[in-house]
Amino acid sequence: MPLLWVICAMDERDAVLEANQAFYEAFALGDMPAMEAIWSTGQDLACIHPGWQALVDRNAVMESWRSILASPPPVRCIGARAFVNTTLAHVICYEGIGKGMLVATNIFRKEEGGWRVIHHQAGPATSVQEATPPSDSRVH
Amino acid sequence: MPLLWVICAMDERDAVLEANQAFYEAFALGDMPAMEAIWSTGQDLACIHPGWQALVDRNAVMESWRSILASPPPVRCIGARAFVNTTLAHVICYEGIGKGMLVATNIFRKEEGGWRVIHHQAGPATSVQEATPPSDSRVH
Repeated sequence: MPLLWVICAMDERDAVLEANQAFYEAFALGDMPAMEAIWSTGQDLACIHPGWQALVDRNAVMESWRSILASPPPVRCIGARAFVNTTLAHVICYEGIGKGMLVATNIFRKEEGGWRVIHHQAGPATSVQEATPPSDSRVH
Repeated sequence: MPLLWVICAMDERDAVLEANQAFYEAFALGDMPAMEAIWSTGQDLACIHPGWQALVDRNAVMESWRSILASPPPVRCIGARAFVNTTLAHVICYEGIGKGMLVATNIFRKEEGGWRVIHHQAGPATSVQEATPPSDSRVH
């Protein structure tokens, strides 16, 4: 496996994790402009908040965030793992909110400005397991 | 927008929805060989069953399905919507189980044998909303 290829793949994974962190910082700070910026400007967006109906298209997704960020929860991202496939990537992570715990899937697309969220789902988790890398992880 | 491009994009979306349907048929029938076949053979798989910890790598994911499919629930897929980005795609859909309702994100990767699942998350949903296409849907 060429070293340069491995380094590039690792860089992309770091870049995705940085974008994921930016998403949670906007979330915790109630920073709606930052939240708008971290999501893709495409219309093909979807979002599934815990216990909500699935929201489809950018307007519906952003409206939901405006509502949530009016009283932002003290959310922190825990144990994020990124899976990169060329220009698409997804992250799984836990969301700690007080003593509660959710688990999330965030999908990112590499666009001109960088990695942008195109999908988010969060739902209840019973406990946190420290994720360990699979023995034969395939990173594209 | 070239007509051929539009037709190809629609075909891919249909192919992803067919793979998603195959996943739910294997699920409802408790068909473990079919479930193994619809998931990618890569190790970079993850699965978040409702209320479970996030499972990472193919062995852990398949072990969970063997456990679940030993007593398969009468699950049916409702209102599936596919979002295709070249060789990655994700589907959002509801999972009806008796009177209960979950909502899911399934991520697919286009591989030599066709579209294969690389990620699944399901969590509780309060109700089903018929998803309608966004007015400016972008399909890659």
